[in-house]
Amino acid sequence: MGELCVHSVLVTGANRGLGLGFVQHFLRMPKQPQWIFATCRDPKGQRAQVRPEVTNPASIKAAAAKVAEHLGGSGLNLLINNAGMVKPKTLDSETLEDMTETYTTNTAGPLLMGQAFLPLLKKAAQGSPGSGLSCSKAAIINISSIGGSFSSFFTWDVIQATSYRCSKAALNMLSKCQSLAYGEHGVLCVALHPGWVQTDMGSSAGHTPPVTVDDSVQGMLKVLSSLSEKETGTFLDWEGNVIPW
Amino acid sequence: MGELCVHSVLVTGANRGLGLGFVQHFLRMPKQPQWIFATCRDPKGQRAQVRPEVTNPASIKAAAAKVAEHLGGSGLNLLINNAGMVKPKTLDSETLEDMTETYTTNTAGPLLMGQAFLPLLKKAAQGSPGSGLSCSKAAIINISSIGGSFSSFFTWDVIQATSYRCSKAALNMLSKCQSLAYGEHGVLCVALHPGWVQTDMGSSAGHTPPVTVDDSVQGMLKVLSSLSEKETGTFLDWEGNVIPW
Ligand SMILES: NC(=O)c1ccc[n+]([C@@H]2O[C@H](COP(=O)([O-])OP(=O)(O)OC[C@H]3O[C@@H](n4cnc5c(N)ncnc54)[C@H](OP(=O)(O)O)[C@@H]3O)[C@@H](O)[C@H]2O)c1
Ligand SMILES: NC(=O)c1ccc[n+]([C@@H]2O[C@H](COP(=O)([O-])OP(=O)(O)OC[C@H]3O[C@@H](n4cnc5c(N)ncnc54)[C@H](OP(=O)(O)O)[C@@H]3O)[C@@H](O)[C@H]2O)c1
Repeated sequence: MGELCVHSVLVTGANRGLGLGFVQHFLRMPKQPQWIFATCRDPKGQRAQVRPEVTNPASIKAAAAKVAEHLGGSGLNLLINNAGMVKPKTLDSETLEDMTETYTTNTAGPLLMGQAFLPLLKKAAQGSPGSGLSCSKAAIINISSIGGSFSSFFTWDVIQATSYRCSKAALNMLSKCQSLAYGEHGVLCVALHPGWVQTDMGSSAGHTPPVTVDDSVQGMLKVLSSLSEKETGTFLDWEGNVIPW
Repeated sequence: MGELCVHSVLVTGANRGLGLGFVQHFLRMPKQPQWIFATCRDPKGQRAQVRPEVTNPASIKAAAAKVAEHLGGSGLNLLINNAGMVKPKTLDSETLEDMTETYTTNTAGPLLMGQAFLPLLKKAAQGSPGSGLSCSKAAIINISSIGGSFSSFFTWDVIQATSYRCSKAALNMLSKCQSLAYGEHGVLCVALHPGWVQTDMGSSAGHTPPVTVDDSVQGMLKVLSSLSEKETGTFLDWEGNVIPW
């Protein structure tokens, strides 16, 4: 298990919560990535030019074009699909709009991001020495949730969030499909559960989550540094444990 | 394992394929249900008054009101969410529209149907003698697919259909959520894989599926007759085997 050492990384939903935490950790690394694309859909500053609204294909394509421009001839090593949303509702109060909006953001977004950035990920894989898969070469990391696991309903009485659970189960399926389709291009794909973390989302049910953003992100980065082709297509948590689908 | 004996049943997507097969089998039963609601979104005949477009909440509510009217004071024993669609595409060619349309039909539709028909299912459960759960009392049967199982990618090279796999994985999650939310109301909920069946959908990749509609439906009805509270929230195939999520 080496240190995570990437030339370029893109994180969605980087204005707050875990996305922001990822960016801060990348900036603090001894071997800082040369390119950190901290994207958010609604940046305050004028300088942000990569702002995908992950439910909007045109916006995603524009972001991919901008990133390619910045990178010049080189590829993108790491795509972290972190942006996500939850409606903490009971099953009875879910609506078609909840289902669609949550799925579009949490599941279709990562699919579209994967498609748009595949050329850059391929380029990074081709430009990396050695065989096999790793996050230092090229990887798609889908930030999923244990709420999308069929083995984990201990939170059901606290938060049903059916639209969220369905979207994350589907995101896990997407991760599996991406691993099958993109493996031959040298791109590793996993779904990652960040733990129950102190962010706006984590605190949305009125509880105080046990894990800090710092600990979660540090754990996830350690997991990323350890991944190889053995782990592509799996579902892991921030401590490296395999989560049953 | 007794014979399936229901007073009333509703099947979506009953104009062709497995939905039509279900209706034909119910009509042939020695103890025929008193009410068989064979619904389809676009009925040719003037007599059909229950025609939910399963992606349209208003249309679903109207269908539930019609069914309640027909049933008088009695409940609905069996809701078979059979309507479904597939886009047999590769991962690279999936679009936001494919993702949304497939999810709305295959996953949100069953959620909305369950919500709209819950009062009638509850009524059937309350009006049935004995304790425990069974399809003769009240049940939601979600026709899912082994394509939604994380353990089954033997068809990947034949048909990727990522939007379909994601929607069915999510439908399985929905079935689990419904089983947790509706169990206390006496409603059993399962996800059922019909086999690879000779219907328009089954043949869509240009192959000839091994299972006939007749065999699939007969198998599924036998499975339904055997279900109890032990099986609620599980994923089974048409021969009664448990499928891993
Ligand atoms: N926190 C937890 O306990 C926990 C547990 C399991 C999984 N997760 C997962 O971890 C990821 C990050 O969550 P978090 O806790 O950091 O949540 P958060 O604090 O609520 O942040 C969510 C981020 O996603 C962005 N986002 C939402 N919809 C978007 C869209 N359509 N396009 C672009 N960006 C969008 C938000 O941007 P805006 O500021 O513009 O809304 C924000 O940056 C999510 O995928 C979540 O499901 C979190
Ligand atoms: N055949 C297989 O091998 C196989 C395998 C695994 C799972 N399944 C599942 O089995 C179920 C039945 O499939 P099938 O093989 O019988 O397919 P099919 O022959 O293509 O029939 C699909 C049915 O669903 C209806 N439908 C589609 N979208 C609808 C909507 N928005 N609202 C209302 N009805 C809608 C169709 O109505 P229209 O005629 O109006 O389009 C049709 O009646 C599906 O859920 C499918 O995913 C099938």
